[in-house]
Parts: sequence; C-alpha cells; structure tokens
Amino acid sequence: MNSNFEDNFVQQLSIDCVIFGYGEGQLKVLVSKLKLNGDFWVLPSGFILKSEGIDRAASRILKERTGLKDIYLDQYRAFGDLDRSNKDVLAEIQRLNPELFDGSSQQKNDLEWLANRFIAIGYYALVDINKVVPKLMSIDQSIDWYPVTSIPQLILDHNQQVQQALEALRMHLDDRLLGFNLLPEKFTMKALQELYEAVYDKPFRRNNFQKKILDLDVLERLEKQFTGASNKAPYLYRFKNYTQ
Amino acid sequence: MNSNFEDNFVQQLSIDCVIFGYGEGQLKVLVSKLKLNGDFWVLPSGFILKSEGIDRAASRILKERTGLKDIYLDQYRAFGDLDRSNKDVLAEIQRLNPELFDGSSQQKNDLEWLANRFIAIGYYALVDINKVVPKLMSIDQSIDWYPVTSIPQLILDHNQQVQQALEALRMHLDDRLLGFNLLPEKFTMKALQELYEAVYDKPFRRNNFQKKILDLDVLERLEKQFTGASNKAPYLYRFKNYTQ
Repeated sequence: MNSNFEDNFVQQLSIDCVIFGYGEGQLKVLVSKLKLNGDFWVLPSGFILKSEGIDRAASRILKERTGLKDIYLDQYRAFGDLDRSNKDVLAEIQRLNPELFDGSSQQKNDLEWLANRFIAIGYYALVDINKVVPKLMSIDQSIDWYPVTSIPQLILDHNQQVQQALEALRMHLDDRLLGFNLLPEKFTMKALQELYEAVYDKPFRRNNFQKKILDLDVLERLEKQFTGASNKAPYLYRFKNYTQ
Repeated sequence: MNSNFEDNFVQQLSIDCVIFGYGEGQLKVLVSKLKLNGDFWVLPSGFILKSEGIDRAASRILKERTGLKDIYLDQYRAFGDLDRSNKDVLAEIQRLNPELFDGSSQQKNDLEWLANRFIAIGYYALVDINKVVPKLMSIDQSIDWYPVTSIPQLILDHNQQVQQALEALRMHLDDRLLGFNLLPEKFTMKALQELYEAVYDKPFRRNNFQKKILDLDVLERLEKQFTGASNKAPYLYRFKNYTQ
C-alpha cells in the first residue's frame, strides 16, 4: 500500500477477475490468499488508473497476475449492490492485524479510500494453465488454482462473481468458440470433450459430441498422438484460428 | 440541475439505458433531445444515488422515463474508455448556451462534477410500447421513439451503446424468451414472427418459424382473432409465463 490510491485511481471502482484455467480434468479459478492474519481469500483484483480505460486496466491486472499478454478476456457484468463496501472486511483485517493500521498518514488515507463502497466491473479470462506461473503480489501469501467446485469462502461477493462468470462462460463456450483458449495448441477429441464436461458439469455422449464439434468446421486434424499402442492412437486437432 | 450532484451521487459513474420498444413493425429506441441550443441527443441516463445499488438505480431511472415498474431490464456491459468525458460536450453546450453557465456556485460545482470522465453501466430494457408514455424531464426538449435503424447522432458513445445492446438482445431473444416483453399480452404468430424479423433484421420462413416457436412449448393458444374474414382468422397466443 505504498501508492497514493486517491491520486492515481478512479474512485469506488474496481476490476475483479475470474481467471479460468483447465487442468487435471477440472475447471479451475485463480484465487489469492492475503498475507494477513486471518483467512482472507480474494479474486485477483485491482483499480483503474485515471490514465487508462477499463479494458486496458483489466489487461494490465491480468498480466500482473499471470505474466500473459493477449489472453482471452471478456467483461461480463458489473457488481454494484449497496452493501458492496470493504468497510467490514477492513475492520476485521484491522482486528486481526492491528500493527498494519498504525502507519503513516498516507497509509491511513489509502485505507480510508479502500473502505468506501466499491462497484466492481467483472471480467473473466481464459488461459492455458500450463503457460501461467501465477505471480505473488506484495499483498499475497499465496495464489493458486482451485477447482471451480471447491473455491474457498471469498470476501464480499467474490464467490457469486465466480458463479456468474461461469454462467457467462457456459453461455459463450459454443457461440464464441471459447474452449480452445483453455487447451494447449494440440489436443485430442477426448480432451476437448472432457473440457466441455468440466465446464458444463455434465457428461456428453462421445459420438454426438464428436459430430457436433466436427460439424462446426473449426478444427484442423493433425498427426496421431502416438502413445505406444499405435493402432489405438487418437488424432490430434488444432483450432483453425489458433493464434497464440 | 438543482440537486447537489457531488453530495448525492456516486462519482464518475452513470447508468445509461437503451429502452427498446416494438411498434409499426419496427424495433425502436427511446431517445431524448436536450432542451438546449444545438442538437444534443442522448440515451435516457442518470446517476447512482449513494443510497442505492446499481440495479435499483437503473429501475428508478427507467420508471422516471417510462412510468413503468417491473419491466424487463438487463445489464449488458460497462463502457469505460479513457476518453469517455463529458468535457467536450459541456464545452460545446457552453458555447451555444452561455446563459446557462453564469449561475450559482452550486451550479458551477455540478457542472464541474459532470465534466469528469464517466464510466457508464449499460442496461437495456424491453417494454410494451403501447403502455409507455415517455416522460419529459426538465432537461428534455423531446423524448421519442426512433427506429433502431435510424437513430440520430447521439453524444459520446451512445450510438455504440445502442448497437451493443441490440447484440445482447439478439443473443438472448431465444434463450431467455425476451420477445414477449416487447409484445402486448395477446398476439398472433405473424406478429411474433414480424418482431423476430425486426430484431434480427432478416426474414424468417413462416413454417420453420412457427414450428420452432411452438416446439419451445411456451405459448398458450387462445381464441381466434376475428377480423371479418372469419375463415382466415388467425389464432391469438399468450406467453405461458405472462405476468405483467
């Protein structure tokens, strides 16, 4: 908390990010635990510099946390209930970490600024989990991937944000062909189906799924994935518009 | 401009509303012309009271403009480019309406508040155009319905907002069964098809359309609409979940 929040950032607005990755057959979300006494779990978030647009702010915050540029990012909803204030969270943080609150007048100003009611602009991002090395910021004790089905209790409405981002992802998985952002460049049909099953939390029938996907005509069939039992080796596919 | 903006409202945030209605076979949007010298056309907009959530703010603003409560309303996107400032608009208003700008210090404060960079939270609403009597606010010279295909040049990014709201409406017309919000309680299949054609700006084939809609199993078939030529009278339908 060294920066001067009031001078640098748009007031009462935050960017909150639900960063989805896919690994071990599970859809996962990047969650940070704050370096504080007490259990304070949060979505990667940040504020909007007075000198940047909101989309650029979201890209900057994502790059800070994932090291990745040019990742798929979509704004899906703003969260602005009247009770969206950090005040109670900050009071609890102060109770458990009193030593943080006897600092400079600058720090006091920043804490007062943070205690305001905030309206959050929600973005979700889709990343290839193998390319990301989540980055600890000075406020983080840890930052890790959690299966979307077992996210810890987060502050404020962050758990609700994960659910709404998941709904947005489900809605657009097909019409915007989002799934490929969560996979490595080359993948088998089975891996793609397992991704869909993880996102929608339900099984798909193999033949139907394969037909539906191939009918979209967006996949390029590549070499077989040789695993030893060559007569059973499945084909690898690549998204035709793959750009990363 | 009698209220004290700074004391009453969340700073740098507005609620901008694309209010869709359907009449004379056309999808229309409610647009206001400001009571000023010069052509300043705007979407119905307002600010967020410090004492209300953003959804409630949007409902309040819509009720002020349409007189309707409980209308279909959805938040679809926030607009926050760096250059979203009212400064240039206000300068042009001042050039053409200098008499407005020699007022009280309170008015000067409000104008300064308004000249900030604003982030707009975009909502779209769907109304039965026959139930709405658009209301003039003190700042309006006129408020009228314009076909979505011939909206005047609006201030800031308001034209872009109409396009994005239209995209959101198209995306959800089916999956959320939104169309019925734009029709009176009872309608013919032909009227429903014409609504779809107006929203998507393309023709549908009559038999396919009727089958698709009936397969959704959301319509209740009512009496025939008698028009004189009784042997050709079409059936009227009602949305099963009709609640207004």
